[in-house]
Amino acid sequence: MKNYITHSEWSVIEEGFHPEYNEITESLMSLGNGRMGQRGNFEETYSGKSLQGSYVAGVYFPDKTRVGWWKNGYPDYFAKVLNACNWIGIGVRIGEEELDLATADVESFRRELNMKEGVLYRTATVRLKSGIRLSIATERFNSMADDESGAIRYAIRLLNADAEIKLTPFLDGTIRNRDSNYGESFWDEVSKETAFARGCLVLETRANPFGVERFQVATAMAYDLFVNGIRQDFNAIPEKKEKYVAGHVTVKLEAGQELVFVKYGVNLSSANYAREELPGAANAHADRLREKSYGELKHAHMSVWAGKWKRNDIIIEGDVAAQQGIRFNIFHLEQTYTGADARLNIGPKGFTGEKYGGSTYWDTEAYCMPFYLATADASVARNLLVYRHHHLGKAIENAAKLGFADGAALYPMVTMNGEECHNEWEITFEEIHRNGAIAYAIFDYVRYTGDKRYLAEYGLEVLIGISRFWKQRFSWSEAKKAYVMLGVTGPNEYENNVNNNWYTNYIASWTLRYTLSVMDTLEKEDREALDSILEKTAFDYHAGRADWEKILDNTWFPYDAERQVFLQQDGFLDKELLTVAQIAGHRPINQKWSWDRILRSCFIKQADVLQGMYFFEEDFSMEQLRRNFEFYEPMTVHESSLSPCVHAILAAKLNLREKAYEMYLRTSRLDLDDYNNDTEDGLHITSMAGTWMSVVKGFAGQRVVDGMLSLTPFVPDNWSSYSFRIGFRGTLLSVKVTGENTEVKRISGEPLAILLSGQECFV
Amino acid sequence: MKNYITHSEWSVIEEGFHPEYNEITESLMSLGNGRMGQRGNFEETYSGKSLQGSYVAGVYFPDKTRVGWWKNGYPDYFAKVLNACNWIGIGVRIGEEELDLATADVESFRRELNMKEGVLYRTATVRLKSGIRLSIATERFNSMADDESGAIRYAIRLLNADAEIKLTPFLDGTIRNRDSNYGESFWDEVSKETAFARGCLVLETRANPFGVERFQVATAMAYDLFVNGIRQDFNAIPEKKEKYVAGHVTVKLEAGQELVFVKYGVNLSSANYAREELPGAANAHADRLREKSYGELKHAHMSVWAGKWKRNDIIIEGDVAAQQGIRFNIFHLEQTYTGADARLNIGPKGFTGEKYGGSTYWDTEAYCMPFYLATADASVARNLLVYRHHHLGKAIENAAKLGFADGAALYPMVTMNGEECHNEWEITFEEIHRNGAIAYAIFDYVRYTGDKRYLAEYGLEVLIGISRFWKQRFSWSEAKKAYVMLGVTGPNEYENNVNNNWYTNYIASWTLRYTLSVMDTLEKEDREALDSILEKTAFDYHAGRADWEKILDNTWFPYDAERQVFLQQDGFLDKELLTVAQIAGHRPINQKWSWDRILRSCFIKQADVLQGMYFFEEDFSMEQLRRNFEFYEPMTVHESSLSPCVHAILAAKLNLREKAYEMYLRTSRLDLDDYNNDTEDGLHITSMAGTWMSVVKGFAGQRVVDGMLSLTPFVPDNWSSYSFRIGFRGTLLSVKVTGENTEVKRISGEPLAILLSGQECFV
Repeated sequence: MKNYITHSEWSVIEEGFHPEYNEITESLMSLGNGRMGQRGNFEETYSGKSLQGSYVAGVYFPDKTRVGWWKNGYPDYFAKVLNACNWIGIGVRIGEEELDLATADVESFRRELNMKEGVLYRTATVRLKSGIRLSIATERFNSMADDESGAIRYAIRLLNADAEIKLTPFLDGTIRNRDSNYGESFWDEVSKETAFARGCLVLETRANPFGVERFQVATAMAYDLFVNGIRQDFNAIPEKKEKYVAGHVTVKLEAGQELVFVKYGVNLSSANYAREELPGAANAHADRLREKSYGELKHAHMSVWAGKWKRNDIIIEGDVAAQQGIRFNIFHLEQTYTGADARLNIGPKGFTGEKYGGSTYWDTEAYCMPFYLATADASVARNLLVYRHHHLGKAIENAAKLGFADGAALYPMVTMNGEECHNEWEITFEEIHRNGAIAYAIFDYVRYTGDKRYLAEYGLEVLIGISRFWKQRFSWSEAKKAYVMLGVTGPNEYENNVNNNWYTNYIASWTLRYTLSVMDTLEKEDREALDSILEKTAFDYHAGRADWEKILDNTWFPYDAERQVFLQQDGFLDKELLTVAQIAGHRPINQKWSWDRILRSCFIKQADVLQGMYFFEEDFSMEQLRRNFEFYEPMTVHESSLSPCVHAILAAKLNLREKAYEMYLRTSRLDLDDYNNDTEDGLHITSMAGTWMSVVKGFAGQRVVDGMLSLTPFVPDNWSSYSFRIGFRGTLLSVKVTGENTEVKRISGEPLAILLSGQECFV
Repeated sequence: MKNYITHSEWSVIEEGFHPEYNEITESLMSLGNGRMGQRGNFEETYSGKSLQGSYVAGVYFPDKTRVGWWKNGYPDYFAKVLNACNWIGIGVRIGEEELDLATADVESFRRELNMKEGVLYRTATVRLKSGIRLSIATERFNSMADDESGAIRYAIRLLNADAEIKLTPFLDGTIRNRDSNYGESFWDEVSKETAFARGCLVLETRANPFGVERFQVATAMAYDLFVNGIRQDFNAIPEKKEKYVAGHVTVKLEAGQELVFVKYGVNLSSANYAREELPGAANAHADRLREKSYGELKHAHMSVWAGKWKRNDIIIEGDVAAQQGIRFNIFHLEQTYTGADARLNIGPKGFTGEKYGGSTYWDTEAYCMPFYLATADASVARNLLVYRHHHLGKAIENAAKLGFADGAALYPMVTMNGEECHNEWEITFEEIHRNGAIAYAIFDYVRYTGDKRYLAEYGLEVLIGISRFWKQRFSWSEAKKAYVMLGVTGPNEYENNVNNNWYTNYIASWTLRYTLSVMDTLEKEDREALDSILEKTAFDYHAGRADWEKILDNTWFPYDAERQVFLQQDGFLDKELLTVAQIAGHRPINQKWSWDRILRSCFIKQADVLQGMYFFEEDFSMEQLRRNFEFYEPMTVHESSLSPCVHAILAAKLNLREKAYEMYLRTSRLDLDDYNNDTEDGLHITSMAGTWMSVVKGFAGQRVVDGMLSLTPFVPDNWSSYSFRIGFRGTLLSVKVTGENTEVKRISGEPLAILLSGQECFV
């Protein structure tokens, strides 16, 4: 844990420069707008530790899989989120000396991500080797109002001498992904051009042997210069190199004068433009930005943020760290995925880093769905489901590669375009429970929105594909006289290739049952729709039902009768059953132990049996939940960012308020405090939705019960109150929970009956 | 299976050119002498399919591990057998045209590896595009008499025209390993020089971050020219390029004349020479070869082979395919490892290819040891054991990296210098049974040779290290009230990360028991030696014994009481129990099925439970063996080259003679007939010792019983007789088995009592 970030309700503040943590700060202060994103890098040259990162949504590269020994059914490539052209760069030369905070004497420094505004601010006073002292003040945002653009205001004041200042705004496409499997560059240059105070660079992803689309991205810049607030005439001498364009602007500045350099950036991708239109459109867009001026653009951007905060802020009183934590999570969720484009999804690192690759994990369905259901229009959650429906064909291909037939669908663990693209067989073949999460999200969406039409339109087709997979993946054990599922990895990735992971067996059989129930309902309510889906999927309703029911009647669920707990997998009790408290000096075990030792130990990376009890809570009694929680939680090391939130919600349900609060703090400040020593790689975006859930589903106990919104709130001891807004079936409510009472107000929409701590109320 | 190799008792013959199989033929016709080796490549330019391969024993490169996601305890590198400087190359230009059998019209072609002589012959008649017809006749060997050298005789006869012939003998160090993890070159140039009719190139393995020694190899050539048998004066114009030296020799040749070009090659490595001496020594060596002349060198080489065949030939009468098969196996074993250098071992591909990397697998102890015990001086087998003793420190480090303490030793699955260097965790961490095979080889050696001194000198120290590992690797299962071993991979690599692999549990507990018995014996017979080892290893005899005995009293061995068979692992009976006969169209499953499907299936790659019953046959009744054989063999796909031999031996023991013969043919002609579709990568050298075992331990039933050599021979139906020689405790016997009787003669050494089909006889 690192404690250098100032606690503040609305901002993430680095007070004084911490070059040793610079990559962490860059992650924390990343900016995005759902379409493009940028780590909190400096604009000027910085020779210290830094991960320069600029990302364009939906643009990726299929990097050839790196495995020890390729085997049939392994994915061909691992799709990498692409580190794209650096558009923020501004070289700053004072006299003969390059401004570089790694070599200059930094007298004062402050970097602040203002989450209310969505603007990154930085001020610094430095003394150069030449003896010249100067102060800089920068601002930057990626516009929420115009999601293909960003702007920078870069102010310089000389403090003790006059000097010639040379500014070099540039676009640099020589960037490489740090996690490239074979150290290769993923970009080719298509074209470049410069004009007065403008430049444009078009890059294309390299040719690949996997038949994956090549993307083009046009990045343009325009810039402007002011001294003491007055726009200046200036010359810009162009420079072009391989995958690089720049302009050189020279200004004589007197001590005490303030120079302001404004740079506008544009990123357009071939996903949205015809290739031949890209450079023209990018240049025109950059020109328009300059015409509008920085102030106007910033205002429009801040207005969008004001609306977002009005709708989705969670206010916590009495606990600044918790307040900062929850806003930090909401801020990053909002700037990663806006729901505007159904082709996009929520990458595990959003626009804050390139590790993990891929855009879409089961995180979306299992952790992010509830956040978007409650905080955005239903169309946003629906788009996330439709995204998977679009990939159904690929999921069927994916299953076929593994030997499954008849339209069985296995959704990928990691994907960009529907194809599986992770490296490791332990994950791709075996961690198949994600297939169930995709089915569960359909159920969750329909339960929350009441939009049953979705089932007939898209949902059932997906459910049939997934259920067909489960049907084939179960096999009959003559020894157990039951259907078993061999060779899987559960959500707890500290096990591999186990038999009968309870969670996977549970969600698989649940999927079969849910799919049958959807068909039953449709049979009664919309026979025509059902017939059409059965025909489209060539599913034999009666034979299929009989097969599935045979499995449902005889599924194997490992269980310990003595402890009365579900067993994570067959043979779990053969392990030495220790608790996390007993290995205090050994954590995190994924950094301190060999993989061998981890695999053999009882320690659990993230909720596994408990994930199932969270999803399917109606199926279990409070006593069952308590027994399983008490058995598994003490063995859980929470070394996945997705772990604490589920435990927070279950602990809240069990009225284990301290545990719930401990887990909440761990999820909400995971990145701010760098709990897992990996924030430098980027933020844990998808787990941020889990933080939101910890408050709303945990402390406030939000559920849907018989089609009604239900709340069972309490206030953690450290807080005096908290409040949030929640949308439900067209009505927007505000909820404020204090130690004494809970105040629910209707902000818009139709009046609504809700359950408040079990009592029906009318709002 | 491919049937293009002519059946012949003493030779491997390709009659007519098969360019589509060229890489297979190159593997089959590889030459070696224990110190350097060469695939059966052409000397002249060949633009068709070819794997150019030249290898120098003990020279390797630590290639950075290629894994999807590196985890603690993964090896840093995979040691690659290095494809070294090509010393055989001779460019041949006829007039304006390069001789290239891929582009010329090949009128006739024959390539023959004469195993009796150890010489590779090739003749061809070709018509060039120019219309010139010519014949070539080449010979090549790597000298068994001088293991740092080789020689080539390259004869050309023009058939229908005079022409100028330009010969370009060269040394080419630009070669790369085809299996390089990141496509990198592994060699740097150190120096090169040319002189009249001579050249030398010194290469060094690239710098690496793993602290692995860098090797230098000096390759030198000398050459000579004859026309119609008369040595010629000639000019040799030198050429030097990056990692390349050559000479250009031009000759005017008349139709009907025979040109003979002789090229001598030398490979010296820094493992045996001071670096600064390398080029000088290599040049001097090459000069000496030329002075001796090709004929003299060839004669000396063939004499060594004559001695080897006299000692170790197996003669099979009545079955040419079987005869060719067994000689092919013996030939390659003899030229891969001579036992002369205790630093070397038996690489899985010998000098025939670079796949798999590493030099030493458990193959050496489990499969090769019996061959060397019976066919060579005891010092050869002893050297193989001492090799592991030298690596004990590294084995302890290897275990420590995984979290084991107190001198526990885990020998690597693959190694060059004692460090683990394979890519895959499923193998390196989990396939730990190899540790037991190293203990077993000590037992096997002592049983065969009677050399108990070895235990006090080296053996016990290794046994204690291995036993300490097993002790820590077992863990107590409260559920089973027994010691279990979780998370292993057995010999059947079509399973990963299973619990309680019967074979591993068995060999582990056997090791503990054997180590205790060795200490008991030493306590009685050589207390001083025991005390010294206990002190050296800091092993507490009494406490340690008590710990081990606790495990021995309560080891878990999975067992099916109904079928009365040992279970390959916990949960094995949950699988769908099919037989290989039921999946006829699906083989080999490692090419036709996804890895997912393989892992979940019951199919077995190679002997697993049966491997244990083979090693520890005295522990089990014939009835137990029969039941387990009948249960497991039908599920075994034999997709490891190491599988058929064990089954051949067990089938012979069970008097399943047809099955034994089927398995024998499969192992002996595995590469000749390319059963597994992978001979192009190189030969399965270590499994060749298994072929030898199939005859001697299988058909002839050779065992050691109470310190006596025992034979229980029979003749397979297809053969009329077979004979072999076998050494036992200083005495050399010849054994001839016919349908009627078995004739055992003493060739040298003291008279010996043996058991012949259970009867004691005196030879």
